[in-house]
Amino acid sequence: MMDKLFRNATLVTPTDPGRPKAGPDQGAVRVVEKGALWCRDGLIRAVGPEEEVLRCLHPHEPDQEVDLEGRCVIPGWVDPHTHLCFAVPREREFSLRLQGVEYLEILRRGGGILSTVRSVRETDEETLFRATRQRALSALRCGTTTVEIKSGYGLDTETELKMLRVIGRIGRETPLDVVPTFLGGHAVPEEYRDAPDAYVDLVVEEMIPAAVRQGIARFCDVFCEKGVFSVAQSRRILQAASAAGLGTKIHADEVHDLGGAGLAAEVGAVSAEHLLAASEDNLRAMARAGTIGVVLPATAYSLRKLFAPARTMVDLGVPVALATDCNPGSSYTESMPFVFGLAVLLMGLSVEEALTASTLNAAYALGMAHKVGSLDVGKQADFLVLEGETPAVIAYHAGANPVVQVYKKGERV
Amino acid sequence: MMDKLFRNATLVTPTDPGRPKAGPDQGAVRVVEKGALWCRDGLIRAVGPEEEVLRCLHPHEPDQEVDLEGRCVIPGWVDPHTHLCFAVPREREFSLRLQGVEYLEILRRGGGILSTVRSVRETDEETLFRATRQRALSALRCGTTTVEIKSGYGLDTETELKMLRVIGRIGRETPLDVVPTFLGGHAVPEEYRDAPDAYVDLVVEEMIPAAVRQGIARFCDVFCEKGVFSVAQSRRILQAASAAGLGTKIHADEVHDLGGAGLAAEVGAVSAEHLLAASEDNLRAMARAGTIGVVLPATAYSLRKLFAPARTMVDLGVPVALATDCNPGSSYTESMPFVFGLAVLLMGLSVEEALTASTLNAAYALGMAHKVGSLDVGKQADFLVLEGETPAVIAYHAGANPVVQVYKKGERV
Ligand SMILES: [Zn+2]
Ligand SMILES: [Zn+2]
Repeated sequence: MMDKLFRNATLVTPTDPGRPKAGPDQGAVRVVEKGALWCRDGLIRAVGPEEEVLRCLHPHEPDQEVDLEGRCVIPGWVDPHTHLCFAVPREREFSLRLQGVEYLEILRRGGGILSTVRSVRETDEETLFRATRQRALSALRCGTTTVEIKSGYGLDTETELKMLRVIGRIGRETPLDVVPTFLGGHAVPEEYRDAPDAYVDLVVEEMIPAAVRQGIARFCDVFCEKGVFSVAQSRRILQAASAAGLGTKIHADEVHDLGGAGLAAEVGAVSAEHLLAASEDNLRAMARAGTIGVVLPATAYSLRKLFAPARTMVDLGVPVALATDCNPGSSYTESMPFVFGLAVLLMGLSVEEALTASTLNAAYALGMAHKVGSLDVGKQADFLVLEGETPAVIAYHAGANPVVQVYKKGERV
Repeated sequence: MMDKLFRNATLVTPTDPGRPKAGPDQGAVRVVEKGALWCRDGLIRAVGPEEEVLRCLHPHEPDQEVDLEGRCVIPGWVDPHTHLCFAVPREREFSLRLQGVEYLEILRRGGGILSTVRSVRETDEETLFRATRQRALSALRCGTTTVEIKSGYGLDTETELKMLRVIGRIGRETPLDVVPTFLGGHAVPEEYRDAPDAYVDLVVEEMIPAAVRQGIARFCDVFCEKGVFSVAQSRRILQAASAAGLGTKIHADEVHDLGGAGLAAEVGAVSAEHLLAASEDNLRAMARAGTIGVVLPATAYSLRKLFAPARTMVDLGVPVALATDCNPGSSYTESMPFVFGLAVLLMGLSVEEALTASTLNAAYALGMAHKVGSLDVGKQADFLVLEGETPAVIAYHAGANPVVQVYKKGERV
């Protein structure tokens, strides 16, 4: 591959200290006014003030030079929590919800997560792939260069594996880096309604081993919530996954303070997600354990709920990451700029904290920080050129896509 | 011009009863499942169930047929309140505001509206036109087919007229219908800081007559607020405008309940804007007078304020319209889909009420309902093809642009 020199950029990036950023450090970013970035084979070989990079290159002449005209450059978004792999949206159900129809009534009318499970089971692998790819490419146009995608709409071994294969194929057949997460513990399927523990057995004894054997999952996640999986059931799933070599994550304390955040800290999960109802004690436990708090403001927006206490989390020393949670039920958005705007304007994160949350900390939440998440030497040249002078433009130019160019491994996509 | 038949559409539109829609009527829309729209010379000649339209056409064969594949079709957005005509964004000031710097301090550092006035005065007409056109075309891509654009960053006769000429040119040199509003009473310029009444004299005695003589303004607006223009000063400006033949509008009760909403009703303004602090008594006066309440949720979002009481306004019988308020200070967005989502998810309007608010009622707020704002015979064939099954997709697919095709006067743009 050729080597390339990007010149005349205003670089704004968290720098990677080898761990997720927390507390005051989360808001510390590096700004280089007349910066350059040199990459070869898709990796950053030098980055910083233009003179320094040129000195480092000398006497080599790069194959190609790109003048970025002083524009602001940030790392590509890392979206660490999505359910992008589904068959059809649930627009009618959204309308019912707006009209005040209760979720239980929506379930009774055949809606809710189990309707997505039905359609994903019925959809052939190729069709599911195309639908997922379309959403992944929408995310890419908004600047997402690394994305986590969860299974969890199969809830039987065959369909969970089908989803994980589709997710893997997105990684091979689009420019995106894709991190596949097994989420068999997303809901109790209809056929196990009266025997949830038997379903947990199936997840632990059949699904996790199969996913690990086939090498198609990197993380295991579980939805710990009243009426879904208890803390004990969630612990069982996560411990089995951990023993089988998967990283762990947990949908924790979205509606009720069940203690999922504490469980995440206890089992050494890399992250806990949602956290709208998490107790301060459990947030402190996360801070001590270094568990990343992945907050999902577009979900709270779409459900008209209060937002997760992201400001408190930062202040308590929990490393905070941001994600779209893109899914057909509670957050149908692929746009990290939209999520960034909500985080800054409605959650009270600073622009710099939100930047770290949606790049470096998000990369740590996926075990991908050695490759992506900041403009540091040795990482991939995944970066975005913004329309404005600073990352503040992402919140400032609301409802727009302020990402004017997306580069993945040094190539414009 | 050719005639065209659009077939196989799901038409969703308010129907035009000859006045803005208020109360329960605001949420009443017509839905035609297998609908068609026939247009000639850019105007709708027939619209409704496909069989009816075909019967009406018979035996004529249209020059062109377009199969809309069952997709949802709504009228083009009418954005009835923008300040799109400005030279440069104020991103740095947005950052300061996020950091908690007070507006007065921002003014002291040379920011605020007067900084936009300085840059608009200094920018030549051609450059101002290009900057404005770029934003107008962004709005068009999001589905805005008719837009109001205000002057108000000149605050001297020469620059106000320059802005109105630029605004007129946008109407001639883009596909958009543009309604120009004179807003000389947007702020007191620095040179009149100690003599605001003398500035009102200038607006009334020089600017309004000049704008009317040149035929380059259709409405006159004024910013009635503590520290800007009092109710008495605003009344003077609006009465002079009215006497000179302009329609009137008023930025009312955004921060303080000065009584601007009541003034709007009193002087027969077509609309009052913002209304975050308007009293219920004055809203009732608006309802009685038929004054349209133009609400601007993206401004409240960007300023982190509470939203205008749109739900109460609908319930009191005020016809409600939605607008972006696109401007460099308090709401930098061209996206009506974004505004629509905020109205539905954070202001509590129903999807149908929001649709009427952003099409028909918005058209009435511009005196344009005879031409645009609904899919009715005789109006322009300005319509949008949506990605989903119903207009709910606009709020559902958050942070996205769910408008997949835009038609202006029957032509795809
Ligand atoms: Zn989730
Ligand atoms: Zn305004």
